[in-house]
Amino acid sequence: MAVGLGAMPVMHPVKGFELGIASAGIKKVGRRDLVLMRCAEGSQVAGVFTQNAFCAAPVQLCKQRLGQPVRFLVTNTGNANAATGQPGLVAAQQVCQAVADSFQVSVEQVLPFSTGVIGEPLPVDKITAALPAAMADLREDNWNLAGEGIMTTDTLPKGASVQFAHDGETFTVTGISKGAGMIRPNMATMLGYVATDACVAGPLLQALVKEAADLSFNRITIDGDTSTNDSFMLIATGQTGPAIDQAEGELYQKLRDAVCAVAMQLAQAIVRDGEGATKFVTVQVEQGGNVQECLDVAYAVAHSPLIKTALFASDPNWGRIVAAVGYAGVPALEQEKVNVFLNDVCIVRDGGRAASYTEEQGAAVMQQEEILIRIELGRGECSETIWTTDLSHEYVRINAEYRT
Amino acid sequence: MAVGLGAMPVMHPVKGFELGIASAGIKKVGRRDLVLMRCAEGSQVAGVFTQNAFCAAPVQLCKQRLGQPVRFLVTNTGNANAATGQPGLVAAQQVCQAVADSFQVSVEQVLPFSTGVIGEPLPVDKITAALPAAMADLREDNWNLAGEGIMTTDTLPKGASVQFAHDGETFTVTGISKGAGMIRPNMATMLGYVATDACVAGPLLQALVKEAADLSFNRITIDGDTSTNDSFMLIATGQTGPAIDQAEGELYQKLRDAVCAVAMQLAQAIVRDGEGATKFVTVQVEQGGNVQECLDVAYAVAHSPLIKTALFASDPNWGRIVAAVGYAGVPALEQEKVNVFLNDVCIVRDGGRAASYTEEQGAAVMQQEEILIRIELGRGECSETIWTTDLSHEYVRINAEYRT
Repeated sequence: MAVGLGAMPVMHPVKGFELGIASAGIKKVGRRDLVLMRCAEGSQVAGVFTQNAFCAAPVQLCKQRLGQPVRFLVTNTGNANAATGQPGLVAAQQVCQAVADSFQVSVEQVLPFSTGVIGEPLPVDKITAALPAAMADLREDNWNLAGEGIMTTDTLPKGASVQFAHDGETFTVTGISKGAGMIRPNMATMLGYVATDACVAGPLLQALVKEAADLSFNRITIDGDTSTNDSFMLIATGQTGPAIDQAEGELYQKLRDAVCAVAMQLAQAIVRDGEGATKFVTVQVEQGGNVQECLDVAYAVAHSPLIKTALFASDPNWGRIVAAVGYAGVPALEQEKVNVFLNDVCIVRDGGRAASYTEEQGAAVMQQEEILIRIELGRGECSETIWTTDLSHEYVRINAEYRT
Repeated sequence: MAVGLGAMPVMHPVKGFELGIASAGIKKVGRRDLVLMRCAEGSQVAGVFTQNAFCAAPVQLCKQRLGQPVRFLVTNTGNANAATGQPGLVAAQQVCQAVADSFQVSVEQVLPFSTGVIGEPLPVDKITAALPAAMADLREDNWNLAGEGIMTTDTLPKGASVQFAHDGETFTVTGISKGAGMIRPNMATMLGYVATDACVAGPLLQALVKEAADLSFNRITIDGDTSTNDSFMLIATGQTGPAIDQAEGELYQKLRDAVCAVAMQLAQAIVRDGEGATKFVTVQVEQGGNVQECLDVAYAVAHSPLIKTALFASDPNWGRIVAAVGYAGVPALEQEKVNVFLNDVCIVRDGGRAASYTEEQGAAVMQQEEILIRIELGRGECSETIWTTDLSHEYVRINAEYRT
């Protein structure tokens, strides 16, 4: 039921970054559920992670290791290795050790990632048994299968790839992401991996991954649930072009734009493939007094089950939108200054139904698959945009049956 | 699909408080949708109202009038008269004026209440045309039909009634409530009316309605949406016993307990009749550092669509519970101190799956209609309890089809 999400685009290989895929049989036999990534020596790896206090064992290890030289990233689906306590940390470490032993690197050079059911022991034996197949499969042109290999309830793999030229050289930024439910980012989200062959200094790369996440993964929500395993990684293999260590200059601007564009496409792909999604909804809040109140209003609208079911039903029940604006907690909000638009149709003017509005206009917008809800608060100059989905029968079915 | 909610109990009449019901045909022809209440001269009326910035026209009028002598409360369903701007205020005033004219009281002595669709003009003519029938119907023993008369998507009317004796006299506390969706109280909720024949000073009655709301209506959530029209009213007709003007003494304690018990039953009845509800869920958070963090955790659990769909599926997917605990925003929460129980079954001990836990134990609890989720945070001595429901296909159906 993905909304406007087709096959993966052309995925340009990134020099110095290889991917290998295998089937470990973690949750389902024969499914691709193990992805190994290898970065060339000298690569820089940056990342942002979930703010959930119950962050998973692999996230805890990643946080410890970031900043050191990283050579491998190993991802399994089917099991989140979250809420697994000390045994979970040991299990993640065992997987990393198996990779380290095979390639004669130190265990600290391997980052682990897991996604799937929370609270069950990680089947380390199955993963280590399948690792040799993933190792043998390592190739630079393996992005498409890797996109499949990190899927859980996703219905389609998600990828984005951009190239740009600078000083006669071609630079590549390519990435994949996964996620369809338990999506309400908080600093970083789900699993996302973006690699570039540019040569970027570690601290600058870390600043860039944070900036890109804030513009993309941190502006989407499906169900308001923040995962225990969210991770967004940015890898620079340093195979192309001069070293970049300042956030300035034309090359850095081009790279920044490319990374942000790829991150935005990957984030929006997650919303388009939201569990049970039949609509892709942009919520844009304008004329706010500050960023936070714009986001508060946008998320109140995006999380309201009443608005989400009305979107599913294609019902322009705008009363539910103003109710959500009203309870978003904006201090001293004046309802008579609020305007609301569905695409180009003004439905609420000065806090009440717009004189020009007809149900037919609203219904025509709501029939569409892609809908913009635009809210003017009449308080200031700030604006923020987030993306979300509707709430359908299918969401309930998927999540009621998830473990069966 | 109401959970454990049967027919209304015996509704003891309250001396000096009459109710009249009529059909105004606001949304559906022939449905009881208009309720008039008359309090004896000298009655005290207190209330708490929604915190929604888009609070409805009748709520705005009620807030202005509270504290003055009140003789009538007039409630319509089928139309919320919310987000209706200045015309909405005029419409509510017209309804009050019609009541005032008939009984030769001032318009300020009439409180208006509305519930139903947001943003449509109130059909004043239909209401005033039906008022004479409601007036002719005024009787002290009319609580049951009044309970029906304030229903919207409720499947059953909701009532509670308690009597207690003091100094040879019998005191009565009787109330009704409505609400099934758009339920996330914020200071007060939905429509609730509780009357007593005791004689209570105005300021004390206002303190009591606030206390009762905080223990009952402000501890429930169905979908996290705060209505524009929430109102909870407490009326003391002063027909029985001595005047009470201090929050002390045996009579006040008995009255307080009776009012809180009735409010609690009415609030829980709303949850039991939650839209599409198949479970009645108590979320109890213990060992918190303060009230707010207990409530933050409780509401994170109660609002998680993933937990709600797992409850619907009777799936003991406790990983979703710890994930919600983790993102509730409790500062410096230590996951290894967290324990979680389903009824008496310990599912999480020290942040991981309890060694004694089996899926069969969890599944056995989840099969029940009434479930207690108890969470120990290991941080302090505070505890808080709230009540909620699951998220079912039926919730989506009801709210997708609400206006059709």
